[in-house]
Amino acid sequence: MSGSGRNESGRVEAFSDGVFAIAITLLILEIKVPEVQGHESLWHALGHQWPSYAAYVVSFLVIGIMWVNHHQVFSYVVRVDRTLMFLNLVLLLVVAAVPWPTAMLAAYLREPGTSHVAAAVYSIVMVAMALSFQALWWHLTRTGHLFDDLVDNAAARRTRARFALGSLAYPAAVGLSFVSAPLTLAAHGVIAVYYGFNQVPVPTRERADGDGDGDETDTGTL
Amino acid sequence: MSGSGRNESGRVEAFSDGVFAIAITLLILEIKVPEVQGHESLWHALGHQWPSYAAYVVSFLVIGIMWVNHHQVFSYVVRVDRTLMFLNLVLLLVVAAVPWPTAMLAAYLREPGTSHVAAAVYSIVMVAMALSFQALWWHLTRTGHLFDDLVDNAAARRTRARFALGSLAYPAAVGLSFVSAPLTLAAHGVIAVYYGFNQVPVPTRERADGDGDGDETDTGTL
Amino acid sequence: MSGSGRNESGRVEAFSDGVFAIAITLLILEIKVPEVQGHESLWHALGHQWPSYAAYVVSFLVIGIMWVNHHQVFSYVVRVDRTLMFLNLVLLLVVAAVPWPTAMLAAYLREPGTSHVAAAVYSIVMVAMALSFQALWWHLTRTGHLFDDLVDNAAARRTRARFALGSLAYPAAVGLSFVSAPLTLAAHGVIAVYYGFNQVPVPTRERADGDGDGDETDTGTL
Amino acid sequence: MSGSGRNESGRVEAFSDGVFAIAITLLILEIKVPEVQGHESLWHALGHQWPSYAAYVVSFLVIGIMWVNHHQVFSYVVRVDRTLMFLNLVLLLVVAAVPWPTAMLAAYLREPGTSHVAAAVYSIVMVAMALSFQALWWHLTRTGHLFDDLVDNAAARRTRARFALGSLAYPAAVGLSFVSAPLTLAAHGVIAVYYGFNQVPVPTRERADGDGDGDETDTGTL
Repeated sequence: MSGSGRNESGRVEAFSDGVFAIAITLLILEIKVPEVQGHESLWHALGHQWPSYAAYVVSFLVIGIMWVNHHQVFSYVVRVDRTLMFLNLVLLLVVAAVPWPTAMLAAYLREPGTSHVAAAVYSIVMVAMALSFQALWWHLTRTGHLFDDLVDNAAARRTRARFALGSLAYPAAVGLSFVSAPLTLAAHGVIAVYYGFNQVPVPTRERADGDGDGDETDTGTL
Repeated sequence: MSGSGRNESGRVEAFSDGVFAIAITLLILEIKVPEVQGHESLWHALGHQWPSYAAYVVSFLVIGIMWVNHHQVFSYVVRVDRTLMFLNLVLLLVVAAVPWPTAMLAAYLREPGTSHVAAAVYSIVMVAMALSFQALWWHLTRTGHLFDDLVDNAAARRTRARFALGSLAYPAAVGLSFVSAPLTLAAHGVIAVYYGFNQVPVPTRERADGDGDGDETDTGTL
Repeated sequence: MSGSGRNESGRVEAFSDGVFAIAITLLILEIKVPEVQGHESLWHALGHQWPSYAAYVVSFLVIGIMWVNHHQVFSYVVRVDRTLMFLNLVLLLVVAAVPWPTAMLAAYLREPGTSHVAAAVYSIVMVAMALSFQALWWHLTRTGHLFDDLVDNAAARRTRARFALGSLAYPAAVGLSFVSAPLTLAAHGVIAVYYGFNQVPVPTRERADGDGDGDETDTGTL
Repeated sequence: MSGSGRNESGRVEAFSDGVFAIAITLLILEIKVPEVQGHESLWHALGHQWPSYAAYVVSFLVIGIMWVNHHQVFSYVVRVDRTLMFLNLVLLLVVAAVPWPTAMLAAYLREPGTSHVAAAVYSIVMVAMALSFQALWWHLTRTGHLFDDLVDNAAARRTRARFALGSLAYPAAVGLSFVSAPLTLAAHGVIAVYYGFNQVPVPTRERADGDGDGDETDTGTL
C-alpha cells in the first residue's frame, strides 16, 4: 500500500471515528427510565437520578474532546505502521470501555463508601486513556516519518513534556476520588473542557518555505 | 490544518452523522418484546404497546429531520473553529439523549398523572435541541468566515429571527404536555414533518456573479 | 446546493449506510447468554436456543441484501429532493425496526398459537420494507431528473411492474405465517438470498453513445 | 456500475467498517455494573469480574485485528461481484456475532464443567470467522480480476496454503477448550496479536515495471 499514504491514515481515522461515535452514543443506555412506585411523583424520581445525568454529560464531553484531539493528531499523520495501528487499537479499547465506568459511577455516586471506589475506577480509566494517547504521540514523534512533511518533528518532540505534564491531572483525579466522588466527576468535566480549548498544538512549518530556518515553526491547531 | 478547509468540516460532519445514525437506530431498543401471560393473545399484547410504536416513529422523524437540517447547514460550512466544535458537541449530546425521553414517554403515555411529566421532559429535550441548533446557527452567522464564500452572510443573519420564531413551537409543546401527553407526542411528529418540508433556507449568492448586487441572493435548500 | 449533485446523494448514502450497519449489528443483542440451571448442560441450553440463531441469520441476510439493493439504486442517484429524503427516512425507519420483530419471532417460534402472530408481524414488517423501497423506486423513476444521465429512465420505469411483482412474495409470507412460523422464517431467508442474486437491474445507456438508439439499453447491476 | 471500480469496493469497505466498529464497541455492554450487597466492598466485586475484562480485551483485539486484515485485503480489491458481496456478508455475520460468545465465555469462565462448553463455542465462532475470511480470499485469488492490477495474482494464489495453515490455530483452540477455558481465552489473545504483526502479505508487482519479470514480486503489507 505504499504510495497511497494519506489514504492509509484515512481508513484508520474512519474506523476510529466510528468507534468514538458509537461509544459516545451508547452512553445514553446508562440512563434508565425511572420506575415510579405508588404515590411518588415522576418529577421526584427524575430528580433522584441526577448522578446519571451528570455522568452522561461529563463522559460525553470526555469522549467528544478525546475525539477532537485524536483527529487533530491524525490530520498530520500520512502513513501508518503496525505499531501505530496497535497503539490506536489500545486507545480505542479504552474509549469504547467508557460507558461502563460511567454507569458504575452514576449508580454509586451517592453511596458513602462505594462512591470513592467507583470514582477511582472512573479516574483510572481516564488515566489509561491519557496514557494510551501519549503512547501514540510518542510513537509518532519518535518515528517522525509517519507525519506529513509539514510537521516540524523536532518541535513536535519537544511538546512531549507539556503533553505528559497535562496528563498529570488524571492521576490527581484518582487521588481526589477518595475525597469526594461528585467532586471527582466535576473535575473530569473541567479537565475535558479545558483540554478542549487548550490543546497542545502540533508544530508545523510553512509548506515550501525556502529559507530553511528551523526556528520558524508555526503551530496548527484545530 | 489551514488550507484544507472543506476537509475540516467534512470530518466534523462524518462524526456527527455517525452519532445521528446511531441515536436513531438505538430508538428500537425501547420497544420490548411483549410478554404474553396465560390466555392473553399476542395480538392483544402488541396492541397494548401502541405508545411505544408512536414514540418510535415520532422520535425517528425528529432525529432524522434534525439530521437533514444539520447537513443542510454544514454543507455551507468550510472552516471550523473551537466554538463551533463545542456547540456541535452540545447539539450531539442532546440528539444522543433522545432515546431516553422516548422510552420514558412510551412507558408513561397512558398513566393519568405521570404522562404529563413524561411529555414535558420529552418536550424540554426538544427545546434543548432547538436551542443548541440555534446557538450553532448564531455562531456561524455571527462569525461569517466559517461559511463558504457562496453564502450571503448578511442575508443569513437576517434569517435568525425566522429561525428563532420557528423554534417557539417547542416551548409551546412543553405547555401542551400538561393538557395531553398523546397530543404532545403527535404535535412533535407534526412539527418534525413541517420543518422537514419547510426549512429556513440558507441564502446564497451565485458564484462568480460579477455585478456585485447584494440584493440578488439566491436561496439554497436541500 | 445545486451544482454538487453527486455529493448530495453521497451524504444521504453515508447516513443510510450507518443506519443499515447499526441495525444489522444490533441483531446480536437478541441472542441471550443462556442461563444454565442445576444439572442442565450448556450444550443442551444452547441447542434449545436455535430459533434465536435462525432468526439472527435470516434477519442479517434480509438487512444485508436490502443494503445491497439500496446501494445499487443510489449509485445511480445524483440529486436528492425532499420527497426522496423523506421516503428514504421511512425506509430506514423500517430497517432500523427489524431487530424488534426478529427478537419476537425468536422468542415465540415454538409456542403453538403465538408463533403464528409473531411470524405474521415479522412478515408485515418485511411488507412495509418492500413497500417503502418500492415507493422510493417509483419516485425516482417518476421524476427521472434525480438519476444520473446514464440511466435509461423510460426503461427504468418499465421495471416497476417486475419490481412490484417480486414484492408479492412478502404478502404471501404473511399468509404462510398462519401455516407455520419456522417455515415462514425459512421463506424469508430464501427470498433474501434469491433477491441478493437476482436483482431487478437498473437499465443504463452507454455513456457518450452517439447513435441515439433508445433500444440499446444496457443493464448495470452490482 | 462498470467504470467506477474503486468506488464499488469503497462502498463495501465503508459498510464493513461500520459493522466492525459497532461490533467492537458493543462488546462493552457485556461488562455489567457489579451489584454490591451488604458489606461486600466494590473492589472485591470488581475483582470478581475479571473474566469479563479478559474476554473484553481478547475479543476487542480479535475484531480489531480482523478489521486490519479485512482492510489490508480490500485495499487491493477494485471490483466486487455478487459472490464477493455475499461472502463478505457472511464474514460480517460472524464478526457481528462475537459479542454473544464473549458474554457467554465471561459468564461461565469459572464454572467447572460449563466453562469448557463456553470456550468451545467461542473457539467455534473464531473457526467460522477464519473460514469465512479464507473463503473470501480464495474467491479473490481464484477470480483474479477483482484485484488491482498491482496484485501478482499467481503469487497471491500461492499464499493460500500459508493462509490456511495459519488458520489451523483456531481448530486447535477448540480442542484446548476442553483442557482449560481461561487458557483458551489467552490463546485467542495471543493468536490475534500474532496475526496482527505477522500477516500473510498480498504479493504485488511494482507498477509500470517494464521488464515483465514475473519473479519480481513485491509484498505490500499494511
